[in-house]
This record gives sequence, structure tokens and C-alpha cells, in this order.
Amino acid sequence: MNQEIDKNSEIEAIRHSTAHVMAEAVSSIFPDAKLGIGPAIENGFYYDFDLPRPLTPDDLPAITTKMKEIIKANKPFIQKNISREQALDLFHDQPYKLELINDIPDETLSIYSHGNFVDLCRGPHLPSTGKIKAFKLTTIAGAYWKGCEHNSMLQRIYGLAFPSRLELEEYVKKVEEAAKRDHRKLGKDLDLYSIYDEAGPGLVCWHPDGAVIRRTIEDFWKREHDMRRYSIIYTPHIAKLNMWKTSGHWDFYRDYLYSPMVIDEEEYLLKPMNCLYHILIYNSRKRSYRELPLRFAELGTVYRYEPSGTLHGMSRVRGFTQDDSHIFCRYSQLEKETVQVLDLAMYMINTFGFEKYQVKLSTRPEKFAGSDEMWQNATDTLKKALEIKNIAYEVDPGEGVFYGPKIDIKFEDAMNRAWQGPTIQVDFNLPQRFNVTYTGEDGQEHPVAMIHRTVLGSMERFMACITEHYGGSFPVWLAPVQVQVIPVADRHLDYAKKIEADLRKELLRAIVDTSSSTVNHKIRGAQMKKVPCMLILGDKEIAAGTVSVRWRSGEQDNNITIDKLLKILLDTVSQQTS
Amino acid sequence: MNQEIDKNSEIEAIRHSTAHVMAEAVSSIFPDAKLGIGPAIENGFYYDFDLPRPLTPDDLPAITTKMKEIIKANKPFIQKNISREQALDLFHDQPYKLELINDIPDETLSIYSHGNFVDLCRGPHLPSTGKIKAFKLTTIAGAYWKGCEHNSMLQRIYGLAFPSRLELEEYVKKVEEAAKRDHRKLGKDLDLYSIYDEAGPGLVCWHPDGAVIRRTIEDFWKREHDMRRYSIIYTPHIAKLNMWKTSGHWDFYRDYLYSPMVIDEEEYLLKPMNCLYHILIYNSRKRSYRELPLRFAELGTVYRYEPSGTLHGMSRVRGFTQDDSHIFCRYSQLEKETVQVLDLAMYMINTFGFEKYQVKLSTRPEKFAGSDEMWQNATDTLKKALEIKNIAYEVDPGEGVFYGPKIDIKFEDAMNRAWQGPTIQVDFNLPQRFNVTYTGEDGQEHPVAMIHRTVLGSMERFMACITEHYGGSFPVWLAPVQVQVIPVADRHLDYAKKIEADLRKELLRAIVDTSSSTVNHKIRGAQMKKVPCMLILGDKEIAAGTVSVRWRSGEQDNNITIDKLLKILLDTVSQQTS
Repeated sequence: MNQEIDKNSEIEAIRHSTAHVMAEAVSSIFPDAKLGIGPAIENGFYYDFDLPRPLTPDDLPAITTKMKEIIKANKPFIQKNISREQALDLFHDQPYKLELINDIPDETLSIYSHGNFVDLCRGPHLPSTGKIKAFKLTTIAGAYWKGCEHNSMLQRIYGLAFPSRLELEEYVKKVEEAAKRDHRKLGKDLDLYSIYDEAGPGLVCWHPDGAVIRRTIEDFWKREHDMRRYSIIYTPHIAKLNMWKTSGHWDFYRDYLYSPMVIDEEEYLLKPMNCLYHILIYNSRKRSYRELPLRFAELGTVYRYEPSGTLHGMSRVRGFTQDDSHIFCRYSQLEKETVQVLDLAMYMINTFGFEKYQVKLSTRPEKFAGSDEMWQNATDTLKKALEIKNIAYEVDPGEGVFYGPKIDIKFEDAMNRAWQGPTIQVDFNLPQRFNVTYTGEDGQEHPVAMIHRTVLGSMERFMACITEHYGGSFPVWLAPVQVQVIPVADRHLDYAKKIEADLRKELLRAIVDTSSSTVNHKIRGAQMKKVPCMLILGDKEIAAGTVSVRWRSGEQDNNITIDKLLKILLDTVSQQTS
Repeated sequence: MNQEIDKNSEIEAIRHSTAHVMAEAVSSIFPDAKLGIGPAIENGFYYDFDLPRPLTPDDLPAITTKMKEIIKANKPFIQKNISREQALDLFHDQPYKLELINDIPDETLSIYSHGNFVDLCRGPHLPSTGKIKAFKLTTIAGAYWKGCEHNSMLQRIYGLAFPSRLELEEYVKKVEEAAKRDHRKLGKDLDLYSIYDEAGPGLVCWHPDGAVIRRTIEDFWKREHDMRRYSIIYTPHIAKLNMWKTSGHWDFYRDYLYSPMVIDEEEYLLKPMNCLYHILIYNSRKRSYRELPLRFAELGTVYRYEPSGTLHGMSRVRGFTQDDSHIFCRYSQLEKETVQVLDLAMYMINTFGFEKYQVKLSTRPEKFAGSDEMWQNATDTLKKALEIKNIAYEVDPGEGVFYGPKIDIKFEDAMNRAWQGPTIQVDFNLPQRFNVTYTGEDGQEHPVAMIHRTVLGSMERFMACITEHYGGSFPVWLAPVQVQVIPVADRHLDYAKKIEADLRKELLRAIVDTSSSTVNHKIRGAQMKKVPCMLILGDKEIAAGTVSVRWRSGEQDNNITIDKLLKILLDTVSQQTS
């Protein structure tokens, strides 16, 4: 543990020292520079400057060169404590520093100097500038002094700093890889989706190729739900506001709800969740214990207000389709139902190649609905279900929602980043507010146990996640175009169309490139689109009645029969492997 | 033609005369009765009365008996013209008649009498009451005098009247059959859907069994659209109001649009149609002539305001899912695209057993977008496409929407009632307003030809239609439960579950009746749900490893192998026959 602290404070010193070196470099280039603050941050540092002219990325090489000189000179960092008066005198031509000094209540202030450069600073720092081994200036941004928009706008330079060149390079590579995999970039490159200013922020339009992927996932989702005896339903996107007043949502979540519409003098709300409609259907007639469990599932599109600053591509939006379900059962069935939900969730998530999880069980918060005993029993039941499924979990004490305990599962993508996945929540609140009951063997009405659950979360966020996870190279079963058929020349077009037809008959998504480009150009086009299978068809293939395959991986299968190709592709699709 | 007029005026006379006879009967039972009006209507007549006590259906037999006596007495109907003064005197104790007399400007008024009963009336009437051959009193309803809610409420008795007993009986049978097939009744009996007061009128919730049918239709729809190279997309349910201002919808259809919501100080509208989103996606990048035609399709849920009085079950609603598509092509491709849409539409509609059509081609209205020439060409193109498909049609002059000519297809259900089906509309307006173009071979931008089309119309209305068309006996491929597995006694339950599993493995919707009822009771239950295939499993079937089938038609297949049953069922499903 101490080693870790040492390591952390060493990295902090590296980053802090590099910030000072950059400040000196900038001051030497711009002698009139007024300095703001320059802290160490995750992966690096920044420093804010008030300069006579705006910086551009073109300024960074000169600053970097200057910094390297300072580092090479290996000037020692020297700490000194001075009085407030001395400080005010020392920084008399640095108005931002003066403001900082006035903000500090202490009478003694710490400064650090290296060579002729002095900064107001608590440290820690490296022994000397020569100890800085690996840094890289990255971006320039505007930043209000003290983060307040009424203050002047300073120019901020961000940089990375690591203990070694290797670590810096690894980090840079990781960032570049993440940028390449950013679903907003891939969404555009692969023409998967758009969000249009004309329509509104946070509202996702699924373009044809993105929609193919969504539909394939939805079909998979529906099939798995059919097999597990869920009932898939459809409900409207608006309902009378009063329903959400009765449920308590209007009071609790008002900031996230849209403004009501008035229809025939009554207020209606765009639905923020599907549960109330599922309860209406449950309550449409008396339910006997024999009918339970009832599992209503819906790919239900809901709308929630999110401040525009928090919106992010498809992963944080205002309208999204939850793969939602509400299970109505007896309390005695809660354990088995939870086990089955965990089973379904893990199966579906594994299918997409996610293998690492973080599982949390959130328990009773300060304010809660239901009784102590209900919470205790339901929490124990969720624990038991996790144990039955042999799933390691952490307890998150007091982090349950007010209406019941819950299990949250985050999974890690190929870049080791965690994404919010399945959630399973018990609800003590709604069954009571809407009088959701069943008739028991005793002829009496009993309250149902109600579970809210999603597996993928929302189609939008899940799409963002798998786009980054696969880096846009979707496995064959999901790929919008599975086979690009490439005729070498125009005279091979008829054969190409015949092969395309053979593949489409088997419901494979094949398409002929009918353009008049060169073969290489066509291959490059298919590669840009990350098509898993390219067929190159020329004289040889026509003569032999075969196809030559070039896989996305670079592997090739020359002159194989269409039957063999079909077998390979259909196996891959049915096994949902890449 | 004259014969038809004679026939119509004879029926009119029958119905009018029966109304007079009923008025006499009521007056003889209630001597203080004050009479309103009593016209002939479609299929019969009514008469309004002001009576000392409210009528109930129990009053109808006595009135009927009295009417039969009057008919038997064969009293002649005698017409007479009298002066206004004579009329005022004659009806001095009939305040409603006096009001009518005062409303008539003529100085000479016509009265009809039979026996002692006299009524203010223009006729025509039968020669005598004995000529009335077939009538039936049906319902009692409240009706404001002169239809104005500020006037007093009278009691209206409705009756049917036909020239013959046979015609009356046929009509009654038809009405009864229609009532049995009413999708609102079947929707409840078969638990297909609900519309909840708590949520709002015109908003349909698809219950599990109704949702199975919808999903099956949607899967069929998607498969056919995939095969025909449509691109299925998803778009949000709200967008900035401004889009619908640009399109002109806000001005043209405002009464049918919901009130806007405000988000971040901007107005948003619940979408009344999908087209603008499809245009946004089309316009997301430049399109080359090589990409055309582009066929965007969406099962898009839209919301339109309809006055609550016009709402009717699932067939007239406020929220509905259109099976929508917009085709963007060159004008030179319009004919081929129209032919293909007709082909798809006819194929899909035929699949549901609709074989009779009424096809209308609507041409340029008074106010229109685009040029005369554009209209002429597009109208000719639609005509040509209909002729190529050999579809008989009528021209509906001037009935096109302002933005282009259209083809509307109505189809007749099993009761010979017409339902609105596919529509194909050319649009000259939106491409211009949103600058929807493609780059031609000449490198220039050209306006696209845009087609709006639906095949089924909306999932809701189509569901209403097929529910009534099939009378709830959905063909196997659509039936929510395809096979009800009925164990004779508890000891046959395991075998029943094994058979259920065998069927479900083939994606057949099979379910075991696990209740402890008698076999007959279980069969009756399955019949009530109109399940197409019932399997009765007892000792004999277990011993032989077979199943005994009782089909919905009443036919039976005893002791057949599960393989044979699977073949029958899977063939039926794949051929989409009943």
C-alpha cells in the first residue's frame, strides 16, 4: 500500500513538475504571459495562461522544444516558504497569482523555483527538471479563470506526462485506439446512425446499416424471451399524466420528464418508462396464482430529459428503447425468477463476447417504501440467487432505489472499459400504489412480487457499446453487409448476381458491387465498411463454378464451392461467432 | 333504373308505414303519449315519444303484439291535404306536432290516417297496414327533440322493416354475425388488446396474444421487404416542431396534431407521420443516381388527434403504427417502383385471404403543388403501372392530395365490407421544400421522385380488420396459441410436457393445459380461444407414443405420430394457409 502511495505521489510530482516546465517555456516565448493555475491531472497536467494572442496547435512544437531544453538543463526544483508580503511583492506583475495569494488565509506561503522560474506552489516536485522522462503536449482549450464564465477566458494547454516513454506510448496508443473505436466516429464512417440538429439533440435515427444490427439483436432478444416464456407486448408512447402522479414518478423524477401535452383538456406525458402500462395490462383482469409468474416484456421506447451537456452519441440520449420486462410473481417465486433472469442476462451478454463483470447488490437506502422485513427477505433472495448462479458480487450498502433492492451488472468491453448492463430491481412501491394482486389458493388477494429488469439496458447504449467493443468489425451474424460480391470486370456481373441471389435465398445479407471501379478499389471499399466476407469473382471462378473468398481477417479461401461457403457462413451465423 | 327507384320507394313506404303503425300502438298503450317524428331510415325506422315513464326493452313485446293487431286489421292509409288552421286544431294536444306545423311555411299540409290514427306526414305510404310483411323492434334510446341538447329528451324506439320475412331474417343474421365478429368483442373475449381509460382513449395496449399476431405479421412484413430490397430503419417519436412548419404539415393538418412540448426552450411535436425523418436520413449525405432507388421502410408509430366521438376500437385510434415506406427514385424509375409496390401490396393482402378490391386513382385537385406537366406525367405513370399489373380501377377526379396523385386500394373482408388498405402517393411537395435531390450522370443535382406508401395501413386497423375477417379464428401461422396440449389426467402431464417441448423446439406456439379441469372443460376452453389444434393425450397415446388431434374445424386425427403432426403444422405455417 505504501509503495502505491509512493508511486502515486511520484507520478503527481512528475506531472506537477512538467506543468512548471511548460509554464517557464510559455513565459520565455511570451514574456508578457500572465499565469493562472497549473495542476497535475489524470494522465498529465495543464496550465492556464493569459497571452497577448490566441494559441494554435502550431505553437505546441516550439513550446515542446523549449521544454526539452529546460529538461536537458536539469535545473533543480527548490522549495522556499515566504511571507504573504514577500509573495505579493514577488508576483506583483502576475495578477492571477495575486488573486490566489489573497485567497490563501495562511501567513506563510510555499513557492517552488527552478532556474529563474518561480511559482506559487505546495509541491511536491521532482528533485530537478532532468528527472522528467516522458511528456507530450496534446490540446489547447479555452478556460474561464476560476471556472466562472464572468471571469476572463484564459488559454489552457493540456499535456500528458508519465514516468517512462513506454508508459506514455502505451497510453497514447490506447487513446488513439479508443478514438478509432469511438462509436460516434464509427457511426459516421459506417453510416450506422445520425442525430440531427433539425430534429433535436439526443434523438437517434437508425440508418439502414445500424438498423440491421439493431433488428438482428432484437430478433435474438425476442427468440430468447420466447424460449423462456416471456410474453412480448406493445404499449403506447404517451398516457395521461395522472398515471405518473399515482405512481409517484411525477414527484420523484420531474426534472427528467418532458412537459405534458394537453389533449381534450387532459394532460398527457411522453412515457419515461414502460412499467405503468405493464401494470395496467396485468390489472386488466383478476389473476390467479396459477397464472404466475407472468413475464411481460417490451422493446419499449421511452423519453427522458437529459441536459444537453450530458448527451453523448448513442450512449447518452433523450429517447431510447429499453429491452424491458416486468415479472409479476409470488414472493416464493422471486428466487427462481431472479436466477432465471441472471441466466438469461449472462447468456445474452456472453453471446456478444463480454466475459468480465462487476456485479453490485444495492441494499436499503435511508428513505424507503415497504417494511424492514420485506427488504431483508428480498435482499436475501437476491443474494441467494447470485450465489446459486455462482456470481461474485459486492454489496453497495444503502444504494438501492427507494422502492426495493437491486442487482446491477457492469461488463467490460474489449478495451477494459465498464458499461452498465443488466439490472434487476425488486419493487415494493408500485404493486401497492396500483393494487397489483393475485388470488391465492386461499381465495384471498395477495400482493404480487414485482421485478423490473433489462438485460441490454437500451438498444442505443448497447449499440454504442458493441460498436466500440468490436471496433466496428461486427461478427458475421450482426454485420449489416455479410458478403460483398466483387466481380472483377463487367463481364462477371451476371455470375456475381447469381451468387448474390444464392446467398440471399439463405437470408444472408449479400450485395454485389456494381460500380465500374477497379477490383482493388472495390476491395478497399468493402474493407472500409469492415465487411466480413468478400467474394472475388473472375474468369477462373466462372469456369470452375466456384467463388474465391477474402475474409476480413486477411485469410483467403480460393476457388471453393458455393455450398462450402454457405456452410461456413451459416454455421458462423447460427453460432453467433465472428 | 326505374325499377330500382320503384323498389326503393316501396321500401321507404314500408318503413314509413311501420313507423306510423308503431306510433299508433304506443299511443294506444300510453294514451298521454306526445309524438315527435318517425322517419324511415336505413334498414327500418324509428319514432320519438314523450311518455309518462321511461321505456325498457320489456315494453317491446306488448308494442309488437299491438302492432301485429293493427297490421292484421289491414286499415287503409288515407292521405288528405288540410289548411294550417285545421292542422293546428287537429294536433292541438300534440305540442311537438304543433312546433313542426309552425316550422312548415306552406299553407296546405299533408296528413295520413289509418283507422283513428292521424299523423302529419308527406308520405309515401303503403295502401293499407296489412301490406306490412316483416318488422322487428330492436332498441330503445334517448334522443333530444330536434337533436338539440337544450330541448327535452324523448324516447326513441328503433325497428327494422323489410319487404319479406326472408330479407328481415337475412339482415338480422348478418347483424348478429357482424356483432359476433366485432373486433372490440373478440378483442376482449380472446384477450388481444385493451384501451384503458386511465391511459387515454384511442391508445391501444397489445396484450400478449394480440401482440403475437402483430409480431407475426411484422416479421412477415419485414421478410417481404428484405427480399424486395427495402432498408428498414428506426426513427424517434418526437422532433422539433419546426420540421413540420417547413413541411407545411403544421399549417395544413394542425387540428389533427398534438400540442407541442417545450424542451430547452424549443417546441417539439409528437410525430404525426414518418416522412420527414426519412427525408432527413436521405439528406444525411449526397446521393448519387447509382444509389437509387432508395426504399426506406419503417414500422413507425405516429400520433394524430381524432375527436373522441370518432374513435372506434382498434380501427380508429389516436396512436398507430404505420407500415410505412418512402421510396426515393428518379422520375424514370417511378413506373417500375409503382409496379413493384402494387406487386408487394397484392401479395401481402392476398396472403390474408382478401381477394376482392376496389382500386381508385385520384387525380389533381383544385389546389396543388408542382406543375401541370408533373401531375400529368405522374398520373399517367400510375395508370400505366395499374395496367401493367392488370388491375381494374376507377378514376376519382380531383380527389388527389394537394401534393400528388395517388392510388388507394380497398379490400373486402369475409363479410363483404370494404377496408382501407394500401395507398401509394406521389409527392411533389416535400422534395421541393426539403431540397431532396440526387446527383445525376451529368454531375448536376436533380429533384427525386418521392413515393409515400403503406401496404397494411396501420397495425391497429389491420388487426381490427383481420380479427373481423377471420371472426377470431386466426389461421395457424397467426394463431397466438397454435396447439393446446390437453392431458386427460394428471398422470399424462409429463407426456404432455414432452410433446409441448417437441413442438416448441420447432418454434410452434404450444401450451399445456395444466389445470385440474375435466377433458371436456379443457377442450371447451381451447375452443373458446379458437385454438386451431388441440392434442388430447391419454393412456392410449402414451402407450403408442402418438398424439390424437382435434382440429378447430371439428375434424380429428387419432393416434398420429408427432412427426406427422409436425409436418402438417409446419407446412400450414410456412404456406400461411389456415
